[in-house]
Amino acid sequence: FQSHKRTLHDQSETQGADSNPAYDFVRRHIGPNERQTKEMLQTLGLQTMDELIDKTVPSTIRYRGTMNIPEALSEHRALKEAEEIALKNEVWRSYIGLGYNDCIIPTVIQRNLFENPGWYTQYTPYQAELSQGRLESLLNYQTAISDITGLPFANASLLDEGTAAGEAMAMCFRHNKRPRMFISDQLHPHVIEVIRTRASGFRVQIEILPIDKMDFSTKDVAGVIFQYPDTNGNICDPSGLIARAKENGTVVICGSDLLALCLLKPPGEMNVDICYGNSQRLGVPLGFGGPHAAFFACAEQFKRDMPGRVVGLTIDSHGAKAYRLALQTREQHIRQEKATSNICTAQALLANMVAMYCLYHGRQGLRNIATKIHTLTCDLAESLKSGGNSIKNEIFFDTLKIKPKMSLDEIKQRAKEKRINLRYYDNGSIGISLDETMNESDVADIKYVFNVENKSSNENTTVSRDFGQLTRQSRFLNAEVFNKYRSETKLMRYMKHLENKDISLVHSMIPLGSCTMKLNAAAELTPVSWAHFNRIHPFAPSTQWKGYVRLLNDLNQFLCEITGYDKISFQPNSGAQGEYAGLRVIRAYHEHNGQPQRKICLIPTSAHGTNFASAIMAGMKIEKVPVDKTGAVDMKHLAQLAAKHKDTLACGIVTYPSTNGVFEETIKEFCDIIHKNGGQIYLDGANMNAQVGLCRPGDYGSDVSHLNLHKTFCIPHGGGGPGMGPIGVKKHLAPFLPNHPLLDANADHNSKDSFGPVSSAPFGSASILPISWMYIRMMGASGLRRATETAILNANYIAKRLESSYKVLFRGHNGFAAHEFIIDVSHFKERTGIDAVDIAKRLQDYGFHAPTVSWPVAGSLMIEPTESEDKNELDRYCDALIEIRKEITQIENGEYDKKNNPLKNAPHSQHIFLHEKWVLPYSLQKAVFPIHFVSPNYKFWPSCGRVNDVYGDKNLKCRVD
Amino acid sequence: FQSHKRTLHDQSETQGADSNPAYDFVRRHIGPNERQTKEMLQTLGLQTMDELIDKTVPSTIRYRGTMNIPEALSEHRALKEAEEIALKNEVWRSYIGLGYNDCIIPTVIQRNLFENPGWYTQYTPYQAELSQGRLESLLNYQTAISDITGLPFANASLLDEGTAAGEAMAMCFRHNKRPRMFISDQLHPHVIEVIRTRASGFRVQIEILPIDKMDFSTKDVAGVIFQYPDTNGNICDPSGLIARAKENGTVVICGSDLLALCLLKPPGEMNVDICYGNSQRLGVPLGFGGPHAAFFACAEQFKRDMPGRVVGLTIDSHGAKAYRLALQTREQHIRQEKATSNICTAQALLANMVAMYCLYHGRQGLRNIATKIHTLTCDLAESLKSGGNSIKNEIFFDTLKIKPKMSLDEIKQRAKEKRINLRYYDNGSIGISLDETMNESDVADIKYVFNVENKSSNENTTVSRDFGQLTRQSRFLNAEVFNKYRSETKLMRYMKHLENKDISLVHSMIPLGSCTMKLNAAAELTPVSWAHFNRIHPFAPSTQWKGYVRLLNDLNQFLCEITGYDKISFQPNSGAQGEYAGLRVIRAYHEHNGQPQRKICLIPTSAHGTNFASAIMAGMKIEKVPVDKTGAVDMKHLAQLAAKHKDTLACGIVTYPSTNGVFEETIKEFCDIIHKNGGQIYLDGANMNAQVGLCRPGDYGSDVSHLNLHKTFCIPHGGGGPGMGPIGVKKHLAPFLPNHPLLDANADHNSKDSFGPVSSAPFGSASILPISWMYIRMMGASGLRRATETAILNANYIAKRLESSYKVLFRGHNGFAAHEFIIDVSHFKERTGIDAVDIAKRLQDYGFHAPTVSWPVAGSLMIEPTESEDKNELDRYCDALIEIRKEITQIENGEYDKKNNPLKNAPHSQHIFLHEKWVLPYSLQKAVFPIHFVSPNYKFWPSCGRVNDVYGDKNLKCRVD
Ligand SMILES: Cc1ncc(COP(=O)(O)O)c(C=O)c1O
Ligand SMILES: Cc1ncc(COP(=O)(O)O)c(C=O)c1O
Ligand SMILES: O=C([O-])O
Repeated sequence: FQSHKRTLHDQSETQGADSNPAYDFVRRHIGPNERQTKEMLQTLGLQTMDELIDKTVPSTIRYRGTMNIPEALSEHRALKEAEEIALKNEVWRSYIGLGYNDCIIPTVIQRNLFENPGWYTQYTPYQAELSQGRLESLLNYQTAISDITGLPFANASLLDEGTAAGEAMAMCFRHNKRPRMFISDQLHPHVIEVIRTRASGFRVQIEILPIDKMDFSTKDVAGVIFQYPDTNGNICDPSGLIARAKENGTVVICGSDLLALCLLKPPGEMNVDICYGNSQRLGVPLGFGGPHAAFFACAEQFKRDMPGRVVGLTIDSHGAKAYRLALQTREQHIRQEKATSNICTAQALLANMVAMYCLYHGRQGLRNIATKIHTLTCDLAESLKSGGNSIKNEIFFDTLKIKPKMSLDEIKQRAKEKRINLRYYDNGSIGISLDETMNESDVADIKYVFNVENKSSNENTTVSRDFGQLTRQSRFLNAEVFNKYRSETKLMRYMKHLENKDISLVHSMIPLGSCTMKLNAAAELTPVSWAHFNRIHPFAPSTQWKGYVRLLNDLNQFLCEITGYDKISFQPNSGAQGEYAGLRVIRAYHEHNGQPQRKICLIPTSAHGTNFASAIMAGMKIEKVPVDKTGAVDMKHLAQLAAKHKDTLACGIVTYPSTNGVFEETIKEFCDIIHKNGGQIYLDGANMNAQVGLCRPGDYGSDVSHLNLHKTFCIPHGGGGPGMGPIGVKKHLAPFLPNHPLLDANADHNSKDSFGPVSSAPFGSASILPISWMYIRMMGASGLRRATETAILNANYIAKRLESSYKVLFRGHNGFAAHEFIIDVSHFKERTGIDAVDIAKRLQDYGFHAPTVSWPVAGSLMIEPTESEDKNELDRYCDALIEIRKEITQIENGEYDKKNNPLKNAPHSQHIFLHEKWVLPYSLQKAVFPIHFVSPNYKFWPSCGRVNDVYGDKNLKCRVD
Repeated sequence: FQSHKRTLHDQSETQGADSNPAYDFVRRHIGPNERQTKEMLQTLGLQTMDELIDKTVPSTIRYRGTMNIPEALSEHRALKEAEEIALKNEVWRSYIGLGYNDCIIPTVIQRNLFENPGWYTQYTPYQAELSQGRLESLLNYQTAISDITGLPFANASLLDEGTAAGEAMAMCFRHNKRPRMFISDQLHPHVIEVIRTRASGFRVQIEILPIDKMDFSTKDVAGVIFQYPDTNGNICDPSGLIARAKENGTVVICGSDLLALCLLKPPGEMNVDICYGNSQRLGVPLGFGGPHAAFFACAEQFKRDMPGRVVGLTIDSHGAKAYRLALQTREQHIRQEKATSNICTAQALLANMVAMYCLYHGRQGLRNIATKIHTLTCDLAESLKSGGNSIKNEIFFDTLKIKPKMSLDEIKQRAKEKRINLRYYDNGSIGISLDETMNESDVADIKYVFNVENKSSNENTTVSRDFGQLTRQSRFLNAEVFNKYRSETKLMRYMKHLENKDISLVHSMIPLGSCTMKLNAAAELTPVSWAHFNRIHPFAPSTQWKGYVRLLNDLNQFLCEITGYDKISFQPNSGAQGEYAGLRVIRAYHEHNGQPQRKICLIPTSAHGTNFASAIMAGMKIEKVPVDKTGAVDMKHLAQLAAKHKDTLACGIVTYPSTNGVFEETIKEFCDIIHKNGGQIYLDGANMNAQVGLCRPGDYGSDVSHLNLHKTFCIPHGGGGPGMGPIGVKKHLAPFLPNHPLLDANADHNSKDSFGPVSSAPFGSASILPISWMYIRMMGASGLRRATETAILNANYIAKRLESSYKVLFRGHNGFAAHEFIIDVSHFKERTGIDAVDIAKRLQDYGFHAPTVSWPVAGSLMIEPTESEDKNELDRYCDALIEIRKEITQIENGEYDKKNNPLKNAPHSQHIFLHEKWVLPYSLQKAVFPIHFVSPNYKFWPSCGRVNDVYGDKNLKCRVD
């Protein structure tokens, strides 16, 4: 299992901070050196960093202490400490199943995608023209999911199996507005619990019952969810159920397993409407629960309702084929309270790994793998039966439920000897799920555990590849792309070809406001490849993940120190999921206090779309708080609203520093008003990068926040995920944090008064937590603070440099922005026809990714440079924007035509060379080398002309043929 | 130490071949699938692969057996087995020194260079226009070496410290033609022994003696080599020695340590002529001896004599700055018997790692590191002295020679407790060399070993940073490039920027004849990153490298099976080094038989340049054997020559299949003739890729061969190294294989009748051997054979497709080539002015690297596709060459001007867009999108116009300022 690496050090070497500046990671993480920092401060008319911070962060909320975080380690020593932690975990063979199965990651994918910053530092592919590589790969993923499930549409991943089921349920309610939901009792237990959580947020009625007890004739059942094969491994023909449901207008949802579907008739061929599940076993490590891409596919009629991001085909300005995110499912477009889902960050990188795995194996390979697993399972079943055990599920793919002959204690003892984990049911039954990594000798070990004979069985006698009516007849992965890259050379070249089409942090800065595209250091990523972190089953006994406990405890302490909160829950898999969890915590708190009526949630209109969506999903009622001309929350209005709803107020949601990039002086007052009226504060932590070491939400009045670890704490964005959105809470909310049905009920992490789980895995995407741990461990308290200061300095430096060319919106009362700021470009429109998108596209010709476009303010660009960019890079970006401003002036002056100019025609891809003659009214140099630093030696080429979104949405096509 | 990874598996999992075709590595390694294979055979008019092989390989030499090589494993299982082997090695802390010191590899370099196929699958940068990235990096390396040593010229690496010293010695003799050589007895012992070997090849007289015993006044001493600091860590002022030598016309050579030179006055400032050493400790793993880049720098007057490759600055066709290999030091240009060195493959990848390490740290960082090490050493010395031990070397940098107070046994016991390796001298003294990975606690452990007090000493009292006269005053690494990329973000972008300028195997096929640019699979490379392979000191006790013993034994068996030889020596670090070693084996054999006069060596004129150079270095006399019009060795002439020299004949050297790409039918006869006349056969194994599984040199008459593991056995070329050139011999030669002074005299690997060592490390670049092991283990006997067959098929398929456009030279008597073939393009010259180079450069516009140009035949291209390329890729390459042929016809027809046409102007870089107007007499499309598959979506841009070699050689500049 080639991803199972660990660093290896002599055990006797001891730890210790490095006094040697050569090993000071802080200097590696932070872009500007001392000289540059000084220069930038001078440009701002300041003497010291302290002066800047004093003028930026309200003194009322300043944190003056020193965070109790251990002294910074060099990357060398930090990796050694990480290794010690890793070694506290034990890597057993886990045949527990429950949606998680070990697998073999082709090394070529591991090295060239999973461990390659060219892939993992990409942002979500909103700027399609320099994202064609990952868009193509995600389309391959969607096609594979669509093919295997037999349904025509698939999205580009969801967070995990449980939330995917939850999203499917929500789709039913939207679809037919009926009040009830049937859930098969044979779903994975954690999936049932996540559904239960989701349903109770919506206050809808779910009924968990056996399939044959389901009565749809009342015609008030919105949807039904069943699992095929079910959680016990049983495969029964669902056609009766489906027919009954459909007759009565109930939407049919099927949880499934992609490898099983390579041999089984797929849901799409049985009239199922929606199919979901975990795609982890197709080439993604177990990772103690994640990150993994949940898949989600649906029938034609649901396609425009699909949650999450969907990649679609379209054409570009040259009429050439191009890819882009379809249906405008971009996060900034999440339609506030009209949103149907809060999903934003998903699992793009993992979806890409799955796509490459499908390319690598092709249909025949996947079928071979599935068949091998099935054959071994048949052999095992045979032996177990001969040995006097009874198999509860007659028809199976890879999973058996066994009533054992021997005593459970003895079996557990023998399993321990072999370091094998099985699924132990409460009633004494045992579950076994086989996987791709297994061969005959692994099966022999299981037979040993049950003390049955290991007959070297003749394959042909024990194998039952035939599932009767349910045998898959249809072909899949027929598109050429799945049959073209079968040699390692070809696949490697394909991955590199796609990588090199896309701008990522390996090329130039990506100053996306609210996204914090900072350095994701190689040393931070290294432990993610170690078996001791990534080969642990999420439901392995807790004695095997003591390393994770240490990691979680460390991070709990670090993040509490950083935020001023008292406890962290690591369950949410994304920021939006954190919002949802946090709001559920608040509701649980109110309910616990006998105030279930507290459902009103006040949100400033400038808030991120996910805030609204999460509140709705959490069963709250939204009241919007207007912002004034300065971008600040209208405090008078807030006070009025809060007072008006004082008996029903649940909470106020606020982002800090604000989404406008300002440290609003009124934040404390905001919190006070809400509190005075009985509400709690949910502070959106997306902007923590401006606060770490300078002020702490827990100190100045907030009750709960999510932290996007994929922003402030260095988890890479992976082209749209993974991420992690743990939430921190003040003490009074701690008892209500998410729990998990498969954790020991008394576990520290299982809060008694919890509202339930929000994720399939107890600690979300646990295997990427080492990234944030490494970051904090290598920065130390002062390094973290220095990073924040530098992020603020960098933003203000750019703002200063741009202010004579662009209108900078919203600064604090001393004239300084926080770690990001907005430039208004809406006024160009009238006189020149230029809007924000044109500037964004033109930046591509300068070799840059655009800032955040038209969010939170229409017709604007929001710039967040982060601390990792040095002054030279900031200057290059400023130079580009200033030069573009001059181009706009040239349009104003009539030098360029309003419709045919370098901005409107941007980006200029190499397609411009296909014309017989030069057709543009400006020179080739102007088009492609618009500034001194873009030259034959330094040119990033967008790989297509501007994509046509309208065409793509009209002609929706989300798979390859 | 972040490179210390290992895969981790549950120990109880057992091995077993995978029957599942999904895991069949053979299908991943070999490009063409079954359908394509069939199509290609059809194109050749053949039914089966057997038919092709029967018609290609002479039946007289066919191997009909099945190689006794274990059944193929999947990459998953092979990695598990590799891990088991790795775990047999023990990773102790090694403070042995002797030119090898542990160090910290910055993770950003490890991940983005060392583990990145975009860097390691590059070829030697002969095609400068698509190699600007690595050329720039190698120039950085040369500059760093030049700066640190204080000498104006440095080359781009040599194989290891010992051979570098040998090369330096050879330069002296060439320089002043004097007969004697003085060697300080304080050089590292293995370096002395390698020098001794080299000298005895040349039959020159070396005298090993203390520096103060050296008398130069006889004016017959060619050169002197001393070491500074010396092998015991002692630093004495060499100025007296240098003055005495120089006065008498003796060349002065200094072995040194780069880190020491950061604090010490550099040799270049003391009138030293040549400085050499190992650059390993600047960011390259110990690797049980290699691969490492030896550095080599010299004074102005020696620059045109420098061995190895040298990168220089020049201009391109647009007058822009460009890099290229200077002085035509390309391997195909090795000037046969006029060569002054046989060095060909060197250590480019490792030199690039060192360059990046220097960029990462800069001068101040390196000085900090050196100072920290020195400070710790002072502290240790102090404590040891206080504890009653005596320090033999008063002035030191990082190395102490100690006369211990305690008994050696006790010290060894305590060292074992702490898992620490020290240097144990025969006389009871102990050597300790400190390194970058160490901190106070490591030093405390050493103190424990000597049972001395660990006073927490005040740094300032114990430190002696002042080396008096010998303190370094001069600055170094002053060039901007060493001060620009200090943050990780910047360095990562720089590495990616350079990577993406260069064509490597991640882009397209590189069909270099005689170079075998096949797939270097990710799984093969993975174990190289594991601590258990790469963190072992080459002189650690043999009890700690049992895993290596297993690996060497396995490979010995595999390679013997493959070649028909009886024993393999893994010492030579390259093919050329293997040649040298093999020829020395032959001489030792003759001498052992009382035939020291056997020195004549017969070599066909078509042989590789290294063959001649190696023979000269081995003290042989060359007689050239002509080849006839068909490219075949003139057998009559051979017989005559052999008979003429029958009393003095040492050997015949022959490449098989021939350098012309033909399985000559006469090979057996060739061997017989030589044998009959008392000679031995050296068969150059560079073309083993055409033989594996089909015929075995050891069977049909050869006595000794080198195997370029970096060709046939998948070690990547790394942009010009590393490589490995182990030699296989028949039983009668086994006693004469290389030995090593630091191996146990009775060791299995230490042949009694050896001529001596050829490399600094006993097993050469041992840490890359796992690559070849993995390859063989994943292919199995039949997979290996299939690879060979496919390599031959691929070559013949291209030859067939090209034969109507180009003249294919030299095929076997049934009309088939071996695994490569030559197309003659010399006849174009007269009518069109086009020569081979023009075609090579034009191929760049088509996205391809050129084949081997004008070797072994002037005015030709030699094409070797390897088995890893599939039919589509071969077809693309053929299409490109056919299209270029059409372009040549257009010149013939007068459609294009002879001097201004797409070939003469090739490659077309983006510089062509800098002209105000389009100035070329053909279209832009023709220039840059010359064929359907080169399009805006698939375009690799050469990063400069054609480089000007003449200008560069005239204005030789080999460093940045
Ligand atoms: C202010 C704010 N809140 C919430 C989110 C949602 O976070 P996630 O994408 O992790 O779900 C974002 C993401 O961009 C954000 O900017
Ligand atoms: C025929 C032949 N012999 C010898 C060599 C020298 O091998 P190396 O480059 O490993 O020193 C080569 C290298 O290209 C070669 O082609
Ligand atoms: O295998 C690695 O590239 O880490």
